[in-house]
Amino acid sequence: MANKFCYLFSEGNKEMRNLLGGKGANLAEMSGLGLPVPQGFTITTEACTQYYDDGRKINDSIQKEILDYVGKIEALNGKKFGDKTNPLLVSVRSGARASMPGMMDTILNLGLNEDITELLAKQSGNARWAWDCYRRFVQMYSDVVMELGKETFGKLLDAKKKQKGVELDVDLTADDLKELTNQYKAEYKSKIGEAFPDAPIDQLFGAVKAVFRSWDNPRANTYRRENGIPYSWGTAVNVQPMVFGNLNDDSGTGVAFTRNASTGEKALDGEFLINAQGEDVVAGIRTPHKIAKLAEIMPDAYKQFIDICDKLEDHYRDMQDMEFTIENKKLFMLQTRNGKRSAVAALKIACDLVDEGRIDDKKAVTLIDPKQLDELLHPCFDKKALDDAKPIGKAIDGSPGAAVGQVVFTADEAVKLGKRGEGKNVVLVRLETSPEDIEGMIAAQGILTVRGGRSSHAAVVARGMGTPAVVGCTEIDYHGEDDGEKYFVLGGQKIKQGDYISLNGSTGKIYAGAIKTFEPNIEDDANYVRIIKWADKYRRLKVRTNADTPRDALKAAEFGAEGIGLCRTEHMFFEDRIAAFREMILADDKAGREKALDKIEPLQQSDFEKLYEALKGYPVVIRFLDPPLHEFVPTDPEDIKALAKDTGVTVEHVNAVITSLHEFNPMMGHRGCRLAVTYPEIAAMQTRAVIKAAVAVNKKGIKVVPEIMIPLVGDVKELAYVKKTVVETADATLKALKSDIKYSIGTMIEIPRAALTADEIAKEAEFFSFGTNDLTQMTFGFSRDDAGKFLPSYYEAKIYENDPFQTIDQNGVGQLVKLAVEKGKAVKGDKIHFGICGEHGGDPATVEFCHKVGLDYVSCSPYRVPIARLAAAQAAINNG
Amino acid sequence: MANKFCYLFSEGNKEMRNLLGGKGANLAEMSGLGLPVPQGFTITTEACTQYYDDGRKINDSIQKEILDYVGKIEALNGKKFGDKTNPLLVSVRSGARASMPGMMDTILNLGLNEDITELLAKQSGNARWAWDCYRRFVQMYSDVVMELGKETFGKLLDAKKKQKGVELDVDLTADDLKELTNQYKAEYKSKIGEAFPDAPIDQLFGAVKAVFRSWDNPRANTYRRENGIPYSWGTAVNVQPMVFGNLNDDSGTGVAFTRNASTGEKALDGEFLINAQGEDVVAGIRTPHKIAKLAEIMPDAYKQFIDICDKLEDHYRDMQDMEFTIENKKLFMLQTRNGKRSAVAALKIACDLVDEGRIDDKKAVTLIDPKQLDELLHPCFDKKALDDAKPIGKAIDGSPGAAVGQVVFTADEAVKLGKRGEGKNVVLVRLETSPEDIEGMIAAQGILTVRGGRSSHAAVVARGMGTPAVVGCTEIDYHGEDDGEKYFVLGGQKIKQGDYISLNGSTGKIYAGAIKTFEPNIEDDANYVRIIKWADKYRRLKVRTNADTPRDALKAAEFGAEGIGLCRTEHMFFEDRIAAFREMILADDKAGREKALDKIEPLQQSDFEKLYEALKGYPVVIRFLDPPLHEFVPTDPEDIKALAKDTGVTVEHVNAVITSLHEFNPMMGHRGCRLAVTYPEIAAMQTRAVIKAAVAVNKKGIKVVPEIMIPLVGDVKELAYVKKTVVETADATLKALKSDIKYSIGTMIEIPRAALTADEIAKEAEFFSFGTNDLTQMTFGFSRDDAGKFLPSYYEAKIYENDPFQTIDQNGVGQLVKLAVEKGKAVKGDKIHFGICGEHGGDPATVEFCHKVGLDYVSCSPYRVPIARLAAAQAAINNG
Repeated sequence: MANKFCYLFSEGNKEMRNLLGGKGANLAEMSGLGLPVPQGFTITTEACTQYYDDGRKINDSIQKEILDYVGKIEALNGKKFGDKTNPLLVSVRSGARASMPGMMDTILNLGLNEDITELLAKQSGNARWAWDCYRRFVQMYSDVVMELGKETFGKLLDAKKKQKGVELDVDLTADDLKELTNQYKAEYKSKIGEAFPDAPIDQLFGAVKAVFRSWDNPRANTYRRENGIPYSWGTAVNVQPMVFGNLNDDSGTGVAFTRNASTGEKALDGEFLINAQGEDVVAGIRTPHKIAKLAEIMPDAYKQFIDICDKLEDHYRDMQDMEFTIENKKLFMLQTRNGKRSAVAALKIACDLVDEGRIDDKKAVTLIDPKQLDELLHPCFDKKALDDAKPIGKAIDGSPGAAVGQVVFTADEAVKLGKRGEGKNVVLVRLETSPEDIEGMIAAQGILTVRGGRSSHAAVVARGMGTPAVVGCTEIDYHGEDDGEKYFVLGGQKIKQGDYISLNGSTGKIYAGAIKTFEPNIEDDANYVRIIKWADKYRRLKVRTNADTPRDALKAAEFGAEGIGLCRTEHMFFEDRIAAFREMILADDKAGREKALDKIEPLQQSDFEKLYEALKGYPVVIRFLDPPLHEFVPTDPEDIKALAKDTGVTVEHVNAVITSLHEFNPMMGHRGCRLAVTYPEIAAMQTRAVIKAAVAVNKKGIKVVPEIMIPLVGDVKELAYVKKTVVETADATLKALKSDIKYSIGTMIEIPRAALTADEIAKEAEFFSFGTNDLTQMTFGFSRDDAGKFLPSYYEAKIYENDPFQTIDQNGVGQLVKLAVEKGKAVKGDKIHFGICGEHGGDPATVEFCHKVGLDYVSCSPYRVPIARLAAAQAAINNG
Repeated sequence: MANKFCYLFSEGNKEMRNLLGGKGANLAEMSGLGLPVPQGFTITTEACTQYYDDGRKINDSIQKEILDYVGKIEALNGKKFGDKTNPLLVSVRSGARASMPGMMDTILNLGLNEDITELLAKQSGNARWAWDCYRRFVQMYSDVVMELGKETFGKLLDAKKKQKGVELDVDLTADDLKELTNQYKAEYKSKIGEAFPDAPIDQLFGAVKAVFRSWDNPRANTYRRENGIPYSWGTAVNVQPMVFGNLNDDSGTGVAFTRNASTGEKALDGEFLINAQGEDVVAGIRTPHKIAKLAEIMPDAYKQFIDICDKLEDHYRDMQDMEFTIENKKLFMLQTRNGKRSAVAALKIACDLVDEGRIDDKKAVTLIDPKQLDELLHPCFDKKALDDAKPIGKAIDGSPGAAVGQVVFTADEAVKLGKRGEGKNVVLVRLETSPEDIEGMIAAQGILTVRGGRSSHAAVVARGMGTPAVVGCTEIDYHGEDDGEKYFVLGGQKIKQGDYISLNGSTGKIYAGAIKTFEPNIEDDANYVRIIKWADKYRRLKVRTNADTPRDALKAAEFGAEGIGLCRTEHMFFEDRIAAFREMILADDKAGREKALDKIEPLQQSDFEKLYEALKGYPVVIRFLDPPLHEFVPTDPEDIKALAKDTGVTVEHVNAVITSLHEFNPMMGHRGCRLAVTYPEIAAMQTRAVIKAAVAVNKKGIKVVPEIMIPLVGDVKELAYVKKTVVETADATLKALKSDIKYSIGTMIEIPRAALTADEIAKEAEFFSFGTNDLTQMTFGFSRDDAGKFLPSYYEAKIYENDPFQTIDQNGVGQLVKLAVEKGKAVKGDKIHFGICGEHGGDPATVEFCHKVGLDYVSCSPYRVPIARLAAAQAAINNG
């Protein structure tokens, strides 16, 4: 059977969202519930896809089907397009599967031309109404379908009102509106080169094509990318007979939420206007009435609306956002959907619905968008203050939240002036950050960088610390490293050291000056506490955290982390250890390296003890040293000179070592377990620190089982080789300390070959942790540091629709994860466990994937732990 | 049943090579043929593996089994270890599955002590012989088992001869030898700290362990790595009753080949010594007799030996290399194996065996080691001259063959002085080479670099051109870029510009001065011509070549290439095109880029025409531009200034563009099809050049079907996007030229994700060509340019046993190749074809893999085409 591309409202229901779009499915559903809905039809999302497949044409058979359905609604409504006595007018509205800002605006009153307008004027005895309808239609069609813009038409309207000395549209007469409409049409003809279309059918196809076209406009594409909506979904089109809120003073139009979208309070929240149509309510020219006022003006319609609200909430088991129109005191429902709401509201509404007995706790858990919890986890700008501010620039949203502070250009300055120094709020502005900047990053309220993407050092570290960051702002003209005055220029503004700026890490926007902020505390929200407890009841996946410092670990524990899934030990070689570590790098032989490492060992041991204590009793995965050694050597000639002096070698020797460490492709160079193969003494030192710390902490009564993770393994022999050093060292250490505590050894699966040979690797591993950052890089063959150069072209060409570093690429990278889990289980059964510790670990779509492929836990940065807990519950609920 | 770890010769045969090793299997086989073989037993390779699994111990049950088999051969031979009347003496010899230089030397006369020596002296009436045997045994055991070295013992022997005023060992008396033996044993005791073992069984286990141990010595490990022999194979040990060539003048020992190993001539070729044992024949102290002489001295033994030679050749259907001993005129066979031979000899012997009716042409094809053909494809050093020369250094064998020339340090100098300039032979010595050096590399006889491995630019390009190269010689102290005198220092020698050096690209050795060379021509060898024709009859895989220039293509065509599997177009942007290409890189917009590209188009078209013509009628795969753009911009400040001037922009602008092109990991950066996505105009220009060239050449009557290859694809949408530009451009070009020639479009599979999603990609591709260089890099997660830093440690730790860039990693990378072929075929059936164009394409083991997974062709550098043809035939023959 050929595809069916049109559905009457009576043929659909709310389950047909994929085909009919959200709006169409809900109109059908309301229709089925017996609510007063003007009976139209929906052109399916598949028709949209077909339109693109056919090279942006509506093919003949779909055209025929649309005409056919026009006939059906003509019959249903007893009106006909272009009819001389009973003309049909319709609205045309887009409606995708998911709500999609950026899609085409509504077109009302389609079907009108001059003759029909005159007819309606005569029939209704309300010429003003008739010409107002036609005037609006010409304007909307010109703007939305022909893309002539709103400006000219707005100017003509303003001129007319001025000429007539009136303030509101409603004060214009029929003649005024007729003149205005003719001006509009003349404008149309001069711009387009042909007359405004008079045939309703031509108008209809023009509008339908415009809806299809709008699926591919830049705003829609950007929104889709940011929200992970596939291009292939397409949009549906709803064609619905008009009802008129602008017919007379017994008519009106309005919008309402069944509950308060900001607070979640159970109270109808809406607005309406008498004698108005469409956008008038939100346009702000006339001040709309609160919905309660309707009870006074039209008590019957109000009562009916209240009943419908209650019925819809009950039916949809969620807060509803509705549009309605009243024509001659008769109420019509034009839209309902689950209402958008703040995080606070979402939590309250879900709890209230449970308490009202409308839903159970399982359903409540699914009502909250996990990503939205971000609002409750980071400082936010005062909404009013933010609305008033104009950004001086926009870059990549590296780490969410609001930050305000005085600009500093070096990590040292940040420490000196910042919270850990003089107690000021500072924002650290750098070309890019490196591990050397950690102290400064900790001291800063916010971080702004010129280079790097969402996976740059600055962004990754900032997310880990919960510090807002905006990164990769290439428009900045940076003079923060100049010898004289330090400053940067952005958006034409010169910002000097000490000047205040504000960063919105959730949107990537940068503001000059200080904007008011407030700091939420998620644990104070009783509704959150209830919801997350329910979530924990339903989820199967454990949630761990990526934490490198006791500070991060404590924060994550507060947020409910059930262990550390990734402790990167590299920063433990900086700060007060860097001198010793550089000494190791410069050493000529193993003895020299061991001597230097001995100095670091007690410090690492103490770091580990604090981590174990922060997550009492929960497992802690310690990843052994990963980055290439050249990240630890100085680059500045002065620093090199100082290092030579401190270590008692020549500057030439230091330079020779630095040169020897240079790599063409450091990401694929001498790092990860490759370091442990060439310098087993590093792994041995780290093993001793891990084990001694565990013994010490166990003595305090905290039972910790450290999990030692060997990174970047590509072959089982590599793992076996390093493991030998670890086991020998650990066992000798335990023997010396007369302890019998347990430890386990596993590996990161972050190289394609490791996934492909996971059956072999599993023989030597007690756990796999998927390092999906590197696995994504290697599987795609691109470096996240360099991909910024071509990804914009890729988005534009729709080769990629979203960033594979944000949500796991299930098709490619996911295949390797799945394969590795299967191979691992085949060899080891339940003697091996699986986790993910890449940046993806806190992404809800990835969490669902991890649930489905059978991982045991996800690990994410501390501030994403609540998100992951909720997402894990939803994954379990939605996937049985 | 428990494993059986020992086999009597009568229990084995030649098919049991894996278990018994080559030597053991052949001794068993000869025994089965009824030839005179002293009846011993073989300890299996599995016993060796077990020895390592048990932590370098021979476990009790294997010890027991060995003792058991000692008993069996005692019974068989009617002698007993340590017996007071009939003592058993044995030889102990290693014997791996493949011939393995570097393994342990033979130990003869094991079972002797002072008492038994006296007994044998008495029984035989030949005290000199008895003490000679014991003296030899003590020396061999001390050296080989206890690793005391040969030197001290040699000195004691020399001193004794001097003292006695004799020149040869045989002139020493029994008493002399007895004294000497006592001196040896004293030396042993002083070094080892305990007396020389007297118990035969202790001696036997000492020797067996020494054989096992020698499997893991550095020489053996290096040999295995270079020859792709797995560590896991292990070695067998052969224990065989002694027969004595040194008993008297009716005894002797010798070695012989059934044919001449250098020329292949059908004539027994061997040597023997009367009254001698073991190594004496090859030790060079006494001059051995030619084998023919044996006919005069011992006609019966000679006749018997001749018959055995013939029988063995017939039986093994190959030239044999044998060891024999004559004791009291009675002949014993101690070893036979297929003889090592030169390439020329291998070809002749195979043809002769066919002509003699001993083998068929199919068997003949399998008798030649494909890699050995290298000898006939590249200039070689005169063997005598090479033996006399001492290398000043050794590095990586980048490209095989011998090169002699005067040192130059720049490509310009190479062009000026070299074959294309003043006609001198030059060797280009560089830190590393880049595409800018191509002209100089073409002009040079040989290339020597300080940095880079076997997959460096220098090595890859040199192999393509058949130019010998030694690369990655990090020991060089390089001053070739100094302002004043240009020179380098290696092995303590200073080599200045203009000095002669010689490079052996097959061994990596570097010599000061000019060594005599000669140049073979493979096509002149009639035997080669016969063999390769037979090979072509049996192979299924086609063999194409990787060729970028008409010169390379013509050479490959001579060698029998059946098309071009990879034409890298990047060098077509250098030389006289680089100015235009840099103009493109500097252009601000598409129009500017197109203007610059227009200048390059006719030159590329002409390049393509020449390539098509060189390979008349065969398919030609053109890979579109692959390297990142920063490879094309200058780095020298003077060059940058010149470029700014030429292009009419500021130096700052040029520098800004260069900075913007910088990448952290260029291998995973903005390259391959990513360039075509961001700059479709480059792909369009290349398409026009490809198509116009094809049309022009077709007009000349050469039917060419160009195959356009899009590199670095990771997602089907990427391919589809670039393909659209190519198809539109190609079709428009064909239309304009009124031509209907065909072309096809395919992709390289070189990114793991491409292999994983090959089913999707196949929908848009007419062929897949596996780019196994990059696929290996991405799958292993290491860059070949950087891997040199840690691979030595990996070899030492036995994590990798060979270079995955030389032979394909079947376990990891091979999985992806196999998967991609399966997925591609599942979608496209025979509407898609498969090839390989990585460096692996000319490696025989990889060729066999390609045959097995069902590729249609392999593509390799021109000088490996004959090797690949032969390897493809062997793959087909060996895999049915």
